[in-house]
Order: sequence, then C-alpha cells, then structure tokens
Amino acid sequence: MNKIKVGIIGAGRIGQVHAKSITYHIPQAEIVAISDIYVEGAKRVAEELGIPEYYEDYHEILKNPEITAVLICSSTDTHADIACEAAEAGKHIFCEKPVDLTVAKIKKVIAAVDKAGVKLQIGFNRRYDHNFAHIKDLANKGKLGELQTIKITSRDPEPPPIEYVKVSGGIFLDMTVHDFDMARFIGGEVEEVYANATVMVDEAIGAAGDVDTALVALKFKSGAIGVIDNCRKACYGYDQRLEVFGSGGQASAANDTPTNVAYINENGNVTDKPLYFFLERYMKSFTDEMTEFIDAVVNDKATKTTVYDGLEALRLGLAAKLSVAEHRPVKLSEIEA
Amino acid sequence: MNKIKVGIIGAGRIGQVHAKSITYHIPQAEIVAISDIYVEGAKRVAEELGIPEYYEDYHEILKNPEITAVLICSSTDTHADIACEAAEAGKHIFCEKPVDLTVAKIKKVIAAVDKAGVKLQIGFNRRYDHNFAHIKDLANKGKLGELQTIKITSRDPEPPPIEYVKVSGGIFLDMTVHDFDMARFIGGEVEEVYANATVMVDEAIGAAGDVDTALVALKFKSGAIGVIDNCRKACYGYDQRLEVFGSGGQASAANDTPTNVAYINENGNVTDKPLYFFLERYMKSFTDEMTEFIDAVVNDKATKTTVYDGLEALRLGLAAKLSVAEHRPVKLSEIEA
Amino acid sequence: MNKIKVGIIGAGRIGQVHAKSITYHIPQAEIVAISDIYVEGAKRVAEELGIPEYYEDYHEILKNPEITAVLICSSTDTHADIACEAAEAGKHIFCEKPVDLTVAKIKKVIAAVDKAGVKLQIGFNRRYDHNFAHIKDLANKGKLGELQTIKITSRDPEPPPIEYVKVSGGIFLDMTVHDFDMARFIGGEVEEVYANATVMVDEAIGAAGDVDTALVALKFKSGAIGVIDNCRKACYGYDQRLEVFGSGGQASAANDTPTNVAYINENGNVTDKPLYFFLERYMKSFTDEMTEFIDAVVNDKATKTTVYDGLEALRLGLAAKLSVAEHRPVKLSEIEA
Amino acid sequence: MNKIKVGIIGAGRIGQVHAKSITYHIPQAEIVAISDIYVEGAKRVAEELGIPEYYEDYHEILKNPEITAVLICSSTDTHADIACEAAEAGKHIFCEKPVDLTVAKIKKVIAAVDKAGVKLQIGFNRRYDHNFAHIKDLANKGKLGELQTIKITSRDPEPPPIEYVKVSGGIFLDMTVHDFDMARFIGGEVEEVYANATVMVDEAIGAAGDVDTALVALKFKSGAIGVIDNCRKACYGYDQRLEVFGSGGQASAANDTPTNVAYINENGNVTDKPLYFFLERYMKSFTDEMTEFIDAVVNDKATKTTVYDGLEALRLGLAAKLSVAEHRPVKLSEIEA
Repeated sequence: MNKIKVGIIGAGRIGQVHAKSITYHIPQAEIVAISDIYVEGAKRVAEELGIPEYYEDYHEILKNPEITAVLICSSTDTHADIACEAAEAGKHIFCEKPVDLTVAKIKKVIAAVDKAGVKLQIGFNRRYDHNFAHIKDLANKGKLGELQTIKITSRDPEPPPIEYVKVSGGIFLDMTVHDFDMARFIGGEVEEVYANATVMVDEAIGAAGDVDTALVALKFKSGAIGVIDNCRKACYGYDQRLEVFGSGGQASAANDTPTNVAYINENGNVTDKPLYFFLERYMKSFTDEMTEFIDAVVNDKATKTTVYDGLEALRLGLAAKLSVAEHRPVKLSEIEA
Repeated sequence: MNKIKVGIIGAGRIGQVHAKSITYHIPQAEIVAISDIYVEGAKRVAEELGIPEYYEDYHEILKNPEITAVLICSSTDTHADIACEAAEAGKHIFCEKPVDLTVAKIKKVIAAVDKAGVKLQIGFNRRYDHNFAHIKDLANKGKLGELQTIKITSRDPEPPPIEYVKVSGGIFLDMTVHDFDMARFIGGEVEEVYANATVMVDEAIGAAGDVDTALVALKFKSGAIGVIDNCRKACYGYDQRLEVFGSGGQASAANDTPTNVAYINENGNVTDKPLYFFLERYMKSFTDEMTEFIDAVVNDKATKTTVYDGLEALRLGLAAKLSVAEHRPVKLSEIEA
Repeated sequence: MNKIKVGIIGAGRIGQVHAKSITYHIPQAEIVAISDIYVEGAKRVAEELGIPEYYEDYHEILKNPEITAVLICSSTDTHADIACEAAEAGKHIFCEKPVDLTVAKIKKVIAAVDKAGVKLQIGFNRRYDHNFAHIKDLANKGKLGELQTIKITSRDPEPPPIEYVKVSGGIFLDMTVHDFDMARFIGGEVEEVYANATVMVDEAIGAAGDVDTALVALKFKSGAIGVIDNCRKACYGYDQRLEVFGSGGQASAANDTPTNVAYINENGNVTDKPLYFFLERYMKSFTDEMTEFIDAVVNDKATKTTVYDGLEALRLGLAAKLSVAEHRPVKLSEIEA
Repeated sequence: MNKIKVGIIGAGRIGQVHAKSITYHIPQAEIVAISDIYVEGAKRVAEELGIPEYYEDYHEILKNPEITAVLICSSTDTHADIACEAAEAGKHIFCEKPVDLTVAKIKKVIAAVDKAGVKLQIGFNRRYDHNFAHIKDLANKGKLGELQTIKITSRDPEPPPIEYVKVSGGIFLDMTVHDFDMARFIGGEVEEVYANATVMVDEAIGAAGDVDTALVALKFKSGAIGVIDNCRKACYGYDQRLEVFGSGGQASAANDTPTNVAYINENGNVTDKPLYFFLERYMKSFTDEMTEFIDAVVNDKATKTTVYDGLEALRLGLAAKLSVAEHRPVKLSEIEA
C-alpha cells in the first residue's frame, strides 16, 4: 500500500493522541515528522512511535514536499496562522478546535483553504462518539420523526487552571463550543440563543471574568428548541449526555462507564461513575475522526466537519456571551458572519 | 377513633380519586357528603363508596356544621369563589390546582383563609410523588450540596381537547404550573424566567392561541439555574423526570413503568414505556397528599403546599407568558403579587 | 350489585391482606365474617374493616348458609382439614399455600373438592406479580420461542425464626415451594430435580435440621432445563428475579424498588435496594389473585392455580429433599402422586 | 528501552490479536518472528505489522536464541507438544487454552515447564475482563463477605461449525472450560459438579455426539455453591454475565454493549444488544492478559493463570462429561489429577 505522509504540528496531549491513532490504527497513513516549540517533547514522541523526523519549527514540516496532510495540534492562538500557511503550502489540514477566537481570522482561513483547494477538517471529535453518532443515525433514519427538543448536558470533572480561563475566551468558547457543534450536528442551524450564567464552583473563575455554570436556550431554524447546560465541575466526573425528542420517539445517551458491574448491599445498589474525562470517554472518537480525515484525503471525499462548522460554533459562543452581557435573547444574525 | 367529617365538592375524576383515598386508606376521616352540578355523578360515587349524602348544590355541604373539611374538586373557574365561601363557613380546605387564573382572585382566597384561620392545601400532588419526594429528601439532607442546576421534563401522552386549551389559560398555566411548583419545591423562590415556545404537535393548538412545545429557563434567588421542558404529546407516553445537580452530587428520577421486565431478541433489549398518564403515575401521590391534609387538620399541623404556593406558581406561569409575548427574560417582580 | 358473601378463617397478616383487598378493591364481594383462634385479632380486623361478625371458631363461618366462599388463612397444619370441611359445606375455597406438607392430606383435599364440586384456588400469588405475569404473557405469545433455560432467584431479607424452621418442613417446602410453582407456571411439568444445599447463614438453622442456601437444578418434561437458587438471607433485601431464555429471545424481571431515583457522587451511582419483603413486593399480586378468585366464583370460571398445583409444588419440594438426602438426581415420578 | 523479543506460533485469528496487542500497546516487547503452517498467513501478518521474520516451521522460532518468549496460538492438538519443546528450548510460554484435551498431556507440559524453570501463562483472558476483574476485586476487598452463590451465564451468538464440534471435545471442554476457570477464579477450588445437558439448538450437534444447552451445578470446597448455564446460540448475541452473592453483598456484571443509547417510542424503550462476540467483548482483555504476560517475563513475576489452571479447568470439563454420562454428581477427585 502507498501510505500518505503526514506531519504533526504540536506534540502535546492531543497531538500524541492523533499520532497514536495513525501509527496503530490507520494503515493508509504514516507520520513522517512531528514538531513542537518544546522540541524535547517532539523528540520523545518521535522516538516512542518511530517517527523519522522531529523539529522545533513547524515550517520544516510545511516545506517537506512529500507530506500530503498536516495535523495542527498547537496552541489555539497559532491555529489560524498555521492553517493559512499550510493551505498555501498545499497541505490538507486537520485542525484542532477552536480554529480561532475571532470571526475575522477564521474567515482568513476559509479564504486560504478555498483558494488552495485543500481540505480542512475541524477536531469536533464528539460527532464521532459511538453514542452521539448512533443518535444522529436514528435521526437520519427518521426514527425520531420531526425533531422538537434537543437537550445537551456537558459537565467537566474539574475546572481548568485559572490561567487557562483567562485566555480561553470563557466557558462559551472553550467548553460550550463543543455543545454548540453537537446542537448543530443534530438539529441543524441555530437561529437564536439565550444564556443564563453564574459562578457557583469557584469565585476565582468569576474574578477572572468568566462563569462556571451556564444554561443556553436555543431556537433552531427548523422550529425546534433546545437547551445546553454546562458546569465546570461535577463531583462525580465527566457528564456528557444528549437527549433528542421528536414526534417519532426520543433517544438519549447515558454516560459511558468503566464497567457494567452493579454492587448491592444494605446501602443500596451501586454502579460506576462516568469515565473520568475526555481522553477516556472520547478516545475511540479521536481515532474515528482521524480515520475519516485520512480517508477523505486518500479518497478525495468531503469531511463531516469543516472550517465553516468551526466558524458557526464560534459565532454561537459569541452570541451566548452577548446574551449574558446584554441579558436578552440574541439572534445569530447579529454576530458577524 | 373519632373520625373527622369531610365533604367533597365535585364528583369528577379527581374528586373520585380523593374520595377513594379517604374511604380506603385514611382511617382518620370519613366522607359524609359529596356534591356535583351533575347530581347523578355525585349519586353514583356516593353509592359506590357508601357516602351517606349527595347534593347538586355544594352549599348544602358548607351549611353542614358537622363537616370539618371540604375538598374543592369542581371546575377551575369555581375554585376561588367556593374557597372563599368555605373559609367563611369555617371549613378547612383542600383545593385542586390551579386556585384561579388571576392573581386578584387568589389574593381574595388568601384574605378569606387568613381571616377565617382555616387551613388551605393546594393539590400539587407531585410533591408527594415517591421519586420527587426522595430527591427533595436528599437535598434536605445535604447530599446534593449547594444546588446548581434543576432540570424538569414534563411531557403528556396526548394533548387535551382544543376546547380545554381555549379556556385553560394555555400551556404555562395548565401544564407548566405543576413544573413551576416542582421547581420551587426543590430550588426555592424563582427570580426570573425566560421562555421559548412553539407549535409542533398540532396547528389547531396554535390556532387556539396556545403553544404545545416549550422550554423555560429559570433563575432562582439562590443563584441556581434551571430549565423546564414541556410538550403536549410524547408518542411514548407520560414523561415526568427531574434532575437536580449540586456541588455534592446529582439526583435524577426516571419514569415509573408498569413492569421491570426486559425482553431481548435480535432487535435489541426492550423495556417498558412509562406508566400511561397522571392517574397511573401519580396515584399514590394523590393518596399521600390527602393523608397529609387530613393529618394536618386532625393534628393542627402546617401543610407542605399552601395557597401561597398556588399564587406563586400562577405568577410564574404569567411571567412565562409575558416572556413569550415580549420575547425577553421577565423578572417575577414584574408580575402583580 | 349482588355481592357474594365471603368468610375469612384466620385474621393474621395474610388474612388481613386479603380482607383489605376485598373491602377496598373488589366490589363483587363482601366479607360477612372473620374467625381466629385468637378471637381478639378477629375482632380488631372486623372493627377496622366493618366486618359484621367475628368468631373464635371457624365452624361458625362454615355453618353460615349465606357464605359462598371462604379464605383459609390459618396455620399450615390446619389447612387441609378446614379445606375438607369447607368443601363438604359447599363453600368455594381460597387456601393459602402450602395446602399441607404431606401428599396424602392434599389428596384428601382433592377428593373432597372434587366430590363437592367446589372451586379451590391456592395462594400462589407470584403468578399474579406484574413482572412474572408479563414474562408468562411473552412466553404465551411466542416471543420467547421454544423455552430452553429458566432461572429463578429467590432470597429473603431475613431468615424466619428458628421455631418456624423446625416445623415448616424446611427450605424446600416453605420457601422453594413458591419457586417450584413459578417454574411450573412458566415451564410446565418438571421431570427431575437435583439439589445442592448448605448452611451458610446461621448454624442454628443447620442445627434445626434445615439448610439456608440451596440450588436446585431442574429438568422439564419439555426438554428445557432450569435452576432455582435460594438463600434465607440477602443483606440487601428481598431478591426475587426470573430469567427465561428461549430460541426467540430472553426475558428477565428485575426487582421492584421503592423509587426510580439515582444519586451519583464521587463514590458512584446509587439506586434503590429492592422493596423490603413480600408484603411490599407482592402487595398488588395479593389483590390480583383475590380478584381472580372472586371473579371465578361469581362467573363460574376456572382459576389459574388449583389444588393440583399445590400438590405438584409439594412433590417437587419432597423430591429436592430426597435429592439432598441421597445426593443424586431424583425423578418426580419417584415421589408418591 | 531494551525490549524482550517474542515469537508467535500460529498466525490465525487469536495469533493476530496478540500480535497487535504487542505491536501497538506493549512497548516492553517486540515480535521478531511469526510462523504458521499456512506460511502465506504468517507472511501477511508479518508485513502488516512489520515483523522481520516469518516461517512455515515453528522450530525456526524455537531455535532463535534471541527470542525470550513464545506465544502458542496454533491448533489445540499441537499446544502440548509445542509447549514441551518450547520449555526445553528455555522459552517462556503463553499458551492458548485449552492446553490439551487430556490430563496426561497437560501433565507432560507441567513437567517440562517445571524442569526448565520457565513461565507458562494460559490464555484465560476473561480473568482480565474489566467487569469480571472488578467483581474479583470487590471479593478480594471483602465487599462481598463470605461467598455463597456464584452464577455464570455464557451463551454464544452462533454455534461453531459441526466439524469443530466433532473434534473440540464437546461443549464442556470447548466452551464451559472458560466458565470453569471463571468459577475457580472467583470461588476457588471446586469439589463436585453435576451437569444437565440437552440438545435444543441444532440436532446436528446431537448427532455429532455433543449437546448445545447445559447447566452445571457446582459445589466449591469453601462450601459455596454455584451454577453455570451455557447455550451454543442466543438469538440476541453473546451473553456473558456473572453474579456473585455473599454475606456482605452481591455483585453482578451485565453485558457490554456497543452504545449506551436508549430509544423509546410507542413500542417501548430499546437499548443495545450485547457486543457481538468474543473479539468485540473481550478485545481489551486480550491486550491486558498479554501485558501481564510480558510484565511477568520482564520483571520475573508470577502470572495469574498457570498451566495448573488449565489442568483444573480441563478436569472440571471431564467431570461434567462424566456427570452427564452417568447421570450423577461427580467429585473432582474422581478425575485423574
């Protein structure tokens, strides 16, 4: 088999996840280089996985004419610039989310990608989660009838460091953004959002200008309604659920758990807490999204998630922020497109 | 035992439920009279349950000096007037909800009850449901920590007749009113509501000036947030769930089902739909609320639900209607108190 | 309506259960007399439920020509003699299980009942349990295909008093007898049993000549196989489950619980223990079996459980005892019929 | 890192599973050679996974002095001879189960292994299953108290080919053998078995001298009792459950499923069937057992499953066969040790 050659930019946690997916599970591709501004990190991953080259400077990857596709796994503020350069270099792109925290920069990426005619897939991995993908499939098959109410619960086991909160753009851009994409994945375009938000987990989060507990009411263009509820901390772990109610039925995804064992004694019947966090819960979805990206590149197919999806999720996050700021429902059309 | 004597005003479906609860399950009370404007209905119930007297005119009940307590189970538009008369007659009152569709009339009832010094319990039976009461108990015991998010799902198996929709005050007053009471039962006073509403079940409901699918975002005075989602029709039956999330844990009530049998074959693992409708799902709660009412009268105790609870649930319904009409969040303080 | 008149012999726990079922839930019948050798007990029940007559001597009931049916709820050793007398007196009979601990006496009852042409229903209430009846219904409808394996779990929350163990005939006659009836209800006639038995709960039970933990392997005449496992004590409560596996599917009944609430925190997800004991778990089945008995009498129908069912369950218990004693599989044909 | 060098004998389905586990998940080891009597199969696997050498003759592997450990994944009838040769060659051994269908040959393997002082781990992968291992852990921690009843359900989605049935040694040696090991893993040594067996799935299986539906009652040396129920075909898929009941509580493992999605409509609430078959259900356990084997070799530790475990599982299978043949309980001591 002629494997396509891939370069990875960013050797942190998510870069390693993708590197392992390709090395162990995707025979159509091979990683030929990895870069990181902490070059020791790139070196370590390269040695572990047998990747021939590692660099400090990602331009080395973009310059390599053998490389067909790049994975952008660096810090968020670098995504857009690297994506533009990669597009100019004619590379297909897998870019971690969010693409950027501004509409303007994402639009530059869209322009660059369109001009170069390369593919760009955004890392909205939850679309590939076995549970959520199954619900999407039920909806596609008409088993749910006309969709009426979409409910998404998304709670983290622990808040991120305050330093991250200060630069992340806030809960709606760093956390709800995944749920906005899920809402669009299931229910199509959103017309309006209304957000309630509060600080109940840690006052330091409030002091940093963010909130930690939020609820976003959604109106979809289809007429359906929806709600997302978020919290930075659930004491029982990573709570990731979806319920879709329609005229033909209702589908709901419970959390995944480490085991299916029940233990019962005089105190009650005890089953497992959810899998700890996103690496445990969504591990298979990371492999599946990468499989789809490689397949799209090798066989020239469209991908399920595009830079446009990244843009729309960002705009929904900005609309939610505006809703909180002005304490009113906000139409998505009010946000720069 | 010296049983207290009770009169029932209204021999319809809910009047019969209460009549049976007292006859079969509450030895501290006996029903001595029942009235209904359709006197044949009152007669039939009297004969079935061995109630000595039946009347067309409820004033016969109010005039009977032996009667300590009355149950007002007549049509909604008569509740307030009868309650005022009953209070003047010195009877303790159990009144079906809603007390009235206007704040003004409920305030008259409050005044009458206060003046007469009688008890008035509202038929918010869901507070006595085994599942919801257990969650309330967990909250009271501190097992949930500080409450952060309260989620209520309430969907009916079938919409009511259009004739009912036209006079009921609409979904927020005839259906969500129960959920508003549940929200207050669990989370305390509500400060603000924002409602999304749409017609997705039956256009005739829209033509009658109502909606059939709704979502209400709540802000509690405590700082907690909440959401209620309603639909006039769920094809799988009566969907009544509650989830309460706090710093100490999360409690959720699943639906009750006719059996706990699972049947698995090549098509999947099938378990029961929920119990059909409110008479099935909430039957025991009707008996339990009546037991508490009789106990409150016999032993001069306060009741869990008062006419003030009826007033606040109505005001929340009116706030939700205003939110939809003016497409904005509405503070409860905007509604006449 | 012309109610049939019923007399109850035995005013203990189960007698009271049946008395309340008839009084509150079965309008076709009325209780006109109740007897108990502890006449104060009979008097108390009579007063509570408004039963006109109470006696020390059950013969007063049998002599009353107005009484159509009697319920035999006295101690086990009196069942057979009273049943014979009742049959001679022309009364239809509802008899608590076991009818007797000897085949010979049950055969006398069969003869007496046959001669008198009266109905006799045995109190195998579990056939009326919502869960088990639903599985039977699935089997009847062919949803399970050809039955292959039947598994019954039956564990008590607490062992009975040692005094009871000494006279009950042992675990196979006082406890497994219900499971043998369930096995026959679902799987038809049993051909052979093999029993393992041990003492693990309380050595005093062993000292009394009984066992407290047992497993009975079954061969049905149909070719199906089965297993019953019993224990005198499960620390988590009354464990009553059934699994039926066939060529067309598998049905299983989980335990009933007080609520459907799940509480999750850092220690795991906790749901309820089973309902405490037989009065809680099987309450509705007691009413339903009585409803069927009264219906059978009023409308001259056959009942689901006959004295023959009582005989066969006893014989299976005796076969299990023989299996343990001789440490070998025992054919039911070895037991006197 | 200095990786230990491994050779794999047998490139069929299970050989490939182990080859992938080592290649992708176990950095302490590397596969340097693979052999198969169908050399093309070995070649294909070698190319896919980058294994340097492939052979038709496994002796090439045994002769390679660099190889520390071998995995015996060839057909059952060759296991024992190859294991003896491997031991003589000083290789540590991972051997798929069953080691052999005769006690005599397994004893030769024991002797050879003992003499050579090499490790031998048997492929009883279910001990590493997340659910069963969790129950074992609960038992080890004393959460179940004294074990009283152990129940194992094991049903296949489809019967194997008749040709396989004819040479496998029958259901007790090819299928129940796993359950016997699980019984010993949880409950310790077994003293006696009694087996019921029948043909209900396919008459061709009976014609081949085997059964397809079986139930084995167990007595453990500890005094506990147990039961295994097997079937060659469950229409809903691979049914693998375990329930352990003790004085301190009860633990049960439900089946794993592809998703945790529930879909409810007017026909009921539908959840997933179990994962299809052993490769899906037990995939992670295969990796985990191999991880333990490599760890045992690298760090000179004892393994959880030894050739003695293979012997005892075989003897239990032979006892079950004898029980069916002679229609009586059989003590394990009756079987050659």
